[in-house]
Amino acid sequence: MASKPKLTYLNMRGFAEPIRYLLAYANIEYEDRRINPVDFPQEKLSLPYGQVPVLEINGKMINQSNAITRFVASLCGLTGSDDFEAFQIHAMADTIMDLRNFFGDSFWRPIEQDEEHVQARKEEHLRNDIIPFYLSRFEKTVKENNGYFVNGKLSYADVMFAALELHFSNCLEEDITSSYPVLKELVEKVNTIPRIKEWIDNRPITEF
Amino acid sequence: MASKPKLTYLNMRGFAEPIRYLLAYANIEYEDRRINPVDFPQEKLSLPYGQVPVLEINGKMINQSNAITRFVASLCGLTGSDDFEAFQIHAMADTIMDLRNFFGDSFWRPIEQDEEHVQARKEEHLRNDIIPFYLSRFEKTVKENNGYFVNGKLSYADVMFAALELHFSNCLEEDITSSYPVLKELVEKVNTIPRIKEWIDNRPITEF
Repeated sequence: MASKPKLTYLNMRGFAEPIRYLLAYANIEYEDRRINPVDFPQEKLSLPYGQVPVLEINGKMINQSNAITRFVASLCGLTGSDDFEAFQIHAMADTIMDLRNFFGDSFWRPIEQDEEHVQARKEEHLRNDIIPFYLSRFEKTVKENNGYFVNGKLSYADVMFAALELHFSNCLEEDITSSYPVLKELVEKVNTIPRIKEWIDNRPITEF
Repeated sequence: MASKPKLTYLNMRGFAEPIRYLLAYANIEYEDRRINPVDFPQEKLSLPYGQVPVLEINGKMINQSNAITRFVASLCGLTGSDDFEAFQIHAMADTIMDLRNFFGDSFWRPIEQDEEHVQARKEEHLRNDIIPFYLSRFEKTVKENNGYFVNGKLSYADVMFAALELHFSNCLEEDITSSYPVLKELVEKVNTIPRIKEWIDNRPITEF
């Protein structure tokens, strides 16, 4: 890369954390720019589609958390060895992101929403068993693939899940992997990769 | 590919249409399996995450419309010439899909939602100018890139937009490109690519 990339996001883990994990894994030096939420309304006017995260690289400012995640994953060699393997990894990562979005819809409390609305959504999703639906399938998939989500080797789907696990557990106020030993082992395996561990040990401490 | 791929979706254009456009463009023979919505509750039990579309290929059944779209696009050579160009194309395609999702949220009427709710969502999005916000930026981007979304050449982002345009126009009950001549020209350009035109002329006629 010609110049040091700059990742802009709010001062939280959120959708940027899988990207930060991958940047750490790839040992890519970057600027980890964190916006204070009160400054976001002003800031968003300068963003391509009013959203974060954005990655500034090679003189361009590019949006879309999933596209940024995939791009950094491709720099790490974590997107598979051919188009078909990439396809399986991307599909898995998008499915993990579906679960992330369910958590976002159910547990996140936007300023304009009241507690009652959030509770109703939360109960709806728990009643519908969406979280166990996904986690039990993930557990089975990782078990069948020798401890990884796809084809028995590390891919960015594994890194993404590990990076989001804390968010999932915080939302539920319990360790979400406690009933899923294979997922627990996977998270531990990713979180102890030396460069990722170094990131976790040194990252800014934020609530979300 | 070892065997003929099978694309399973509802009997509608929906999220599968960009995939069908790309399969036509790539001249890939496939089974276009269409489920009757009344059969879907039973059908979904056999799907990896209870969702369509799924693509069955090389003995695997893989979900996630965006991942399937990107995979078929990679077979077409429509995902760029390097990782960085792919990144720009994927980000653009994901942003087009954001607009698709706004349309879905605003205009689509799930069985359990009442008309009042749908109207409220529709007015909310129109009031927030989300549709012109996206379309005006798309128009500017395509203009700056010599008639295509990314780097002045055809990519799957262009094909995706053209495949979804009819849905956008149907929702708004007007030609959504009428105020955006550059987007209009792009849609026309994609829809007259011979193999895509052949698909459009011969595809099943469905409401959505």
